[in-house]
Amino acid sequence: MSGNSFGTLYCVSSFGESHGPAYGGIVDGCPPGLPLSADDLQKELDRRKPGSSRHVTQRRESDKVEILSGVYDGRTTGTAIGFLIRNEDQRSKDYAAIADKFRPGHADYTYWRKYGIRDPRGGGRASARETVVRVAAGAIAKKWLQERYGVVIGGYLAQLGPIAIAFKTWQAVDANPFFAANEEVVKKLEAFMDELRESGDSCGARVTVVAQGVPAGWGEPVYGRLDADIAGAMMSINAVKGVEIGAGFAAIEQKGSEHGDEMTPQGFVGNNNGGVLGGISTGQDVTVSLALKPTSSIRLPRRTIDLRGHPATIETTGRHDPCVGIRATPIAEAMLACVLMDHALRHRAQCGDVALPPR
Amino acid sequence: MSGNSFGTLYCVSSFGESHGPAYGGIVDGCPPGLPLSADDLQKELDRRKPGSSRHVTQRRESDKVEILSGVYDGRTTGTAIGFLIRNEDQRSKDYAAIADKFRPGHADYTYWRKYGIRDPRGGGRASARETVVRVAAGAIAKKWLQERYGVVIGGYLAQLGPIAIAFKTWQAVDANPFFAANEEVVKKLEAFMDELRESGDSCGARVTVVAQGVPAGWGEPVYGRLDADIAGAMMSINAVKGVEIGAGFAAIEQKGSEHGDEMTPQGFVGNNNGGVLGGISTGQDVTVSLALKPTSSIRLPRRTIDLRGHPATIETTGRHDPCVGIRATPIAEAMLACVLMDHALRHRAQCGDVALPPR
Amino acid sequence: MSGNSFGTLYCVSSFGESHGPAYGGIVDGCPPGLPLSADDLQKELDRRKPGSSRHVTQRRESDKVEILSGVYDGRTTGTAIGFLIRNEDQRSKDYAAIADKFRPGHADYTYWRKYGIRDPRGGGRASARETVVRVAAGAIAKKWLQERYGVVIGGYLAQLGPIAIAFKTWQAVDANPFFAANEEVVKKLEAFMDELRESGDSCGARVTVVAQGVPAGWGEPVYGRLDADIAGAMMSINAVKGVEIGAGFAAIEQKGSEHGDEMTPQGFVGNNNGGVLGGISTGQDVTVSLALKPTSSIRLPRRTIDLRGHPATIETTGRHDPCVGIRATPIAEAMLACVLMDHALRHRAQCGDVALPPR
Amino acid sequence: MSGNSFGTLYCVSSFGESHGPAYGGIVDGCPPGLPLSADDLQKELDRRKPGSSRHVTQRRESDKVEILSGVYDGRTTGTAIGFLIRNEDQRSKDYAAIADKFRPGHADYTYWRKYGIRDPRGGGRASARETVVRVAAGAIAKKWLQERYGVVIGGYLAQLGPIAIAFKTWQAVDANPFFAANEEVVKKLEAFMDELRESGDSCGARVTVVAQGVPAGWGEPVYGRLDADIAGAMMSINAVKGVEIGAGFAAIEQKGSEHGDEMTPQGFVGNNNGGVLGGISTGQDVTVSLALKPTSSIRLPRRTIDLRGHPATIETTGRHDPCVGIRATPIAEAMLACVLMDHALRHRAQCGDVALPPR
Repeated sequence: MSGNSFGTLYCVSSFGESHGPAYGGIVDGCPPGLPLSADDLQKELDRRKPGSSRHVTQRRESDKVEILSGVYDGRTTGTAIGFLIRNEDQRSKDYAAIADKFRPGHADYTYWRKYGIRDPRGGGRASARETVVRVAAGAIAKKWLQERYGVVIGGYLAQLGPIAIAFKTWQAVDANPFFAANEEVVKKLEAFMDELRESGDSCGARVTVVAQGVPAGWGEPVYGRLDADIAGAMMSINAVKGVEIGAGFAAIEQKGSEHGDEMTPQGFVGNNNGGVLGGISTGQDVTVSLALKPTSSIRLPRRTIDLRGHPATIETTGRHDPCVGIRATPIAEAMLACVLMDHALRHRAQCGDVALPPR
Repeated sequence: MSGNSFGTLYCVSSFGESHGPAYGGIVDGCPPGLPLSADDLQKELDRRKPGSSRHVTQRRESDKVEILSGVYDGRTTGTAIGFLIRNEDQRSKDYAAIADKFRPGHADYTYWRKYGIRDPRGGGRASARETVVRVAAGAIAKKWLQERYGVVIGGYLAQLGPIAIAFKTWQAVDANPFFAANEEVVKKLEAFMDELRESGDSCGARVTVVAQGVPAGWGEPVYGRLDADIAGAMMSINAVKGVEIGAGFAAIEQKGSEHGDEMTPQGFVGNNNGGVLGGISTGQDVTVSLALKPTSSIRLPRRTIDLRGHPATIETTGRHDPCVGIRATPIAEAMLACVLMDHALRHRAQCGDVALPPR
Repeated sequence: MSGNSFGTLYCVSSFGESHGPAYGGIVDGCPPGLPLSADDLQKELDRRKPGSSRHVTQRRESDKVEILSGVYDGRTTGTAIGFLIRNEDQRSKDYAAIADKFRPGHADYTYWRKYGIRDPRGGGRASARETVVRVAAGAIAKKWLQERYGVVIGGYLAQLGPIAIAFKTWQAVDANPFFAANEEVVKKLEAFMDELRESGDSCGARVTVVAQGVPAGWGEPVYGRLDADIAGAMMSINAVKGVEIGAGFAAIEQKGSEHGDEMTPQGFVGNNNGGVLGGISTGQDVTVSLALKPTSSIRLPRRTIDLRGHPATIETTGRHDPCVGIRATPIAEAMLACVLMDHALRHRAQCGDVALPPR
Repeated sequence: MSGNSFGTLYCVSSFGESHGPAYGGIVDGCPPGLPLSADDLQKELDRRKPGSSRHVTQRRESDKVEILSGVYDGRTTGTAIGFLIRNEDQRSKDYAAIADKFRPGHADYTYWRKYGIRDPRGGGRASARETVVRVAAGAIAKKWLQERYGVVIGGYLAQLGPIAIAFKTWQAVDANPFFAANEEVVKKLEAFMDELRESGDSCGARVTVVAQGVPAGWGEPVYGRLDADIAGAMMSINAVKGVEIGAGFAAIEQKGSEHGDEMTPQGFVGNNNGGVLGGISTGQDVTVSLALKPTSSIRLPRRTIDLRGHPATIETTGRHDPCVGIRATPIAEAMLACVLMDHALRHRAQCGDVALPPR
C-alpha cells in the first residue's frame, strides 16, 4: 500500500496537483448494485468548492466530476470506480515569485528535502485541493452507508479561531458558509473573518464530525481499531494537528467513575467514548473532533530561506483560504465515511454470519 | 493487512490474551546486520512491566522474552524475528464474577457484539497487556534508528489527572515510577495516586513522546503521511482518546503569523508543526502528545447490564492500574519508533538515491 | 489492497471498461527525478495496440495516453502518476445480441454470479483491453530499471498453437506482427493465422519473457518471493493458464544433478532456476514462460445458457483476436517490469546499506 | 505487507529457521465460533512430517503444535491465532562443512548476496521446514471452508520423476507414503525411490490439488484474481518452478472450440478452465498443478564456489528428501485452502448481500 492510497477493502487511490491538468481517483471495493451517478459526487464536491463565499479562496473551480468506470446502467458494478476532475483556474504565474523560496508552515521544504524536486505551483501535490478526491470517494461511502445501514454522517465547525460555536441544529450547517450548526453566531463569524482577511493573517479551527446509526461491532483489535483508522485518516487531512474521539483530551482530567459510560437496558448513559470501545463501535454516535492549524499562506511578511539556504522574506499573495478549517467540514465527513465503510466491509467479511444469542 | 498487524515495511504482527498461555509477535522487514539479543528487548519490557511500584497493577509478570528466529550469531539476518513472552500470573478466578456482565468503559460489550463470543478473562485480547508486543517490536526499531540514523526517542508523563508535570530533564524520567521528567513533582504524584487508589477510582493522563535526530524527508503524501501514521499508531494504544502533533489543539487559537514556523539559515524558528510539514519530517524534533482515559476497571460500583440485557451492578476487584497512563510512556515510545522505522525504510526505498544540490 | 491494484511499493491501480469512456491508472511509488513523458508510455502502448495487423482484432483505437500528474518539468516528482486513455471505437451494438447469454470461456457467467450485475459490452471490466493500464505502468518501470540498474526486459512469442518458434534474435521481435524472435517462421505463422481466422476458431500460445541485468538479491522469503510475485502477476493477465520460471515443468523429469545449476568463479553453469533461488534473484537472466488459452470469442456456434438458465447457442461475431497470445508479449514484459521494480525498491528499503565483504 | 506474511483478510505470518529454536505463525482474520483445537492442526502436520517413510528425510521431528491464542473454550474468538512448533532434531554440526560454500540450487548464494549474512544451518529461513507454518494455517482454513461451505480440498502426487501416476481414488492418497491416488503404482514408486536414493541423486515431481464445492463468485478482477493469488501462493512453496490452472500449458495447443467449456442447464461441459474464469470461481472444481524441481541437496559431488569466490566441490550429506515433491501434497493443499478462505472472506465483504434474480 503506497502513500496515495488508503483503505483495506474500500480502497481509495488519488492523484493530481494544484496546477496540473486534473485530479482524479479510483475507488475500489464498492459493493455492486448501489445506484450512483456523477450527481451524487457533485453534491458533496459543491459543498467544499472554492469561491463559494468571500471567506474562502477566490479560485474559481467548477470541480465538475466525471465518472469513468465502475457504473453501468445507473448502478455500481463492483469493479473499480474511476473519476476525474479537471483543473480550470490555474494561475501559475502567481507562484513564480516563490519558486525558489520555502513558504513557512508549508510542505515546500519537506518535499524538496525528500524528493530533491518539487512542483512549486500552488503547493503541487501538497495542496489542499487534493481533498476533492477524498470528498468524491466519501460521497460514495456516505451513500452506501445510508442506504445499507442507515448511517448518517454530519459535521460542523465547532470553533473558529477564538470563537467557540455551540451546536444548535444540523439544519443550520448547510445554511451558512461556515458549516456552523448555529445561525446566531454567523454574523460574529463574518465580522471576525472580514477583519482577519484585512489583517493579512489567518486562523485555526475545530471541526466536529458525527456518524449516527453505526451498528455495534465495526472495528478490529488491536492495531486495526476503528478509532485508530479514524485518527490516521483525519490526521492525513491537510492542516490537521490533532484528533480526538469522544471526550478526547478532556479525558485526562476525568475520573474513571465519570468517564466510563455506564450501561442500562436502555443503552449507554453518556458517550465519553465517542462510540468506540476497544477499537470496536458500540452502537452509539461515533464522534470525532479535529484541530486545524491556521493557513500557512498569509500576506504578512515572514522570514524564510531560499534554495541556497540564504535568508529571505516571503509574502504569499496568491488566492488562499484565510481559515482552511472552514472548508474542512465536508472533507472530514468524507474521511469518516470512507473509514466506516471500510470497516463495515471488513466486519461483514469476518463476522458476517455471527448470530448473537437472543436476550 | 489484518487488524493484528501494522506497518508497511517494518511490519509487526501480534497475538496473545491476558490469561492465555503467552503473548508473542513477529517483526518482519528489519534490515540485516543489526546486533540484537533478547536483552535489548528485555530492557524496554522491564520499563513497562507490571508490579514495579505500588502505583501500578500488582500482577507479577517477569515478562521474560525469548527470541525464536531472525537472529544468528548475535545479528539480525533480515528474516522474520519471532519472539515469545509467556504469561505467568494469570488469576482467572478473579474474573468469574464478571463473565456474564459488561464492564463499563471496557471492550467486553463490543467484542461480544462483534464476535458473538469473548474471552472474559482479564479482557482477553483487549487487555492492555498486549502492549508487551509493541514494546518488544519498538525496542528493535529504537535500536536500529539510533545505530543507523542517531535517532533518539524519549517520552514522559506530562499530566496525571489534574496535575500538569513540567518537563525538566530526560534524566529524571527513568528515575521515578511515573516517567515524570521532573523529580520535584514526584512526591505530589505519589500522594495523589495513594489517595486515588484508596478512593477506588481512577484517572486519566497525558503522555508526550519526542523523537530527536529524525532526518528531513521521512513520510509520504497524501494518506501515508508520517503524522497520519503516528496518529493511527498512537490511537491504537489502549485507552488513548486523543493525539496531537506539535501545537495540536492549541493551533486552533493561533494566528498563521504565530503558528507557521519561520526559517532562517540556522534552521526553523519554533516547532509548532511538531517536526512534520505536509506529512514529511522537517528535521526537527517529532513531538507527539496523547490523552489517555482513566482506567475503566474501578472498585466503585457501576451500573451495567448482563448478557441477557438485565440491569446489574459491577465492582471490578482484580488487579488494575489506577492510571493506565503511567505505564503508557514506554508503549508510546515504542509505537513512535515503529512508525519512524517503517518510514525510514519506505523513504530509502523510493528516495534512496536522491542527491540534493549543494547549497 | 483491493483487486484492482498490485504492488507493495511500486503500486499500480487500474480502472476502465471495454466500452466505457476511458481506461486509466495510478502509478504510485515511482522514485523522483526519472525523465518521463507521455511518449515513453505511448511507445509501449503502440506495441500492444489493436488493429496493427490482420492477425489481431480490427478494433481501431489510437490508445493515446495522457499523463495527468506526478511529472513536472519532464521529470517524475515522486508523487502519484495518473494517466488516462480514452476509448474511441466502442461499438456496443455488437454486444446487444449476447447481453442475456453467457459466452463460454468468458467471465460473463462468473461476474454475474459474483456481482449480480455486469456490464455486457465487450466484456466490461473483464476485457483484455484493461492491459493498456499494465503496459503504461510497465513502461515507467522498464525505463527506471534500465536507467537505474541497466535491466533490459524483452519478450517473444515462443509458440503459436502447435507451432514452436525457436528464439533467434531480439532484433527480430519487433520486426513482425507476432513478436516472433525469428524471421524465418513468420510466413508459416501468417499462413496458420489466415487459416485459423477463416475457420472461425482460435488458438493458444506461449510467450517467454526475459529480464537481463537483474542484480543478485532482489526478492524476499518466504511468501514475498520474487518468483511468487512474478507468477501471480503473470497469472493475472487475461487468458493465462500457466506460468513457469526457468526450467518450469521440465524440472519434473530432471535429476538434481542435472537441474541444480553448478557455480564456478565465472558464474553459474546453466540457468534451470530461471534467475531465482529461494525466491531471490541470482544475478542471472530472469526467465518466465506463460501459457495463454485460445480466445474464447469465436465465430463457431457453441452451446451455452441464458440468464434464466435455458439452453442457447452463441456465435460471437464482434471484433476479436483469434489468438490473444500474439499481443500478450508487451503485456507480459510490462508485468515483469512492474514486479522487478517493486522488488528493487523493497530490496533497497531493507538492504540498502548491506556491504558484502570483499572476495 | 512484508515477505513473511500473505493474505488480505485471512492473513498468515510466519517465522522460524531450520535449526533455530522453533517455527511459529499467526493466523489473523479467522471468523469467530469455529471449533478448533491443536489436534486439528496436528492431523495435517502429521501428513507432512519428516521421517514417516524411508523415502523422505530421516530428520526426526514430532512437529508438535501448541496453540497460544485466539481460541477460547474450544472455539475461535476472531482474534489472532498464534501457534508454535519447537524444533527438536537439529544437528547443526552436519552443516559445519558447508558453511563457507554455496550449495548449487540452494538459496545459500542469494541470501548471502541479499543480506550479507546468512544462517547456514540447514538452509536457515530458506529451509522447506518452514512449510509447517503453512500446513498449520491451512488446516484452519480447510476446516472453516468445509464447515461453512462444504469445500473439500485434496491433493495427490501426479508424477514422480519420469513416472506419471494416474488418478484412481481419493481414498488411496493417504494410504501410501507418496500421496499417490493409485495403489497399483506404489511398488514401482518405491523401487524408483530406492534406486534414486542409492544413486545419491534426486528427482522432480508434479503435484495436483483440487478444491471441490467452491461456490461461484470467489475472486476479484483484475489483479486480485483467484487464479493469480493461487499461482503466487503455489510458486512461493519451496522448489516449485511452475503452476497450472485447469488445462494449463496444454491450452497452448488447444483450439478455442475445444478449450472453452460449453454450458448447459446441467452445468459446464468440461473443466479446461480449472474452475476459474476471469479470475472468479465458476462453481466447478478448482484444479491446480505444480512442478517441483529435484532436491538440490544431493550426495553426488558438484562444482561450486566458496565465500571468497574460489572454486570448490560440495557433497551434501545431511538428511534430505530425495524428492521434495513427495511431501509437497499437504503443503499445496494448505496453500490452496488459505487462498480460497481469503477470497471467501473478501467475497463476503463486498458481495455479501448480492441476491441473484430467480431463474
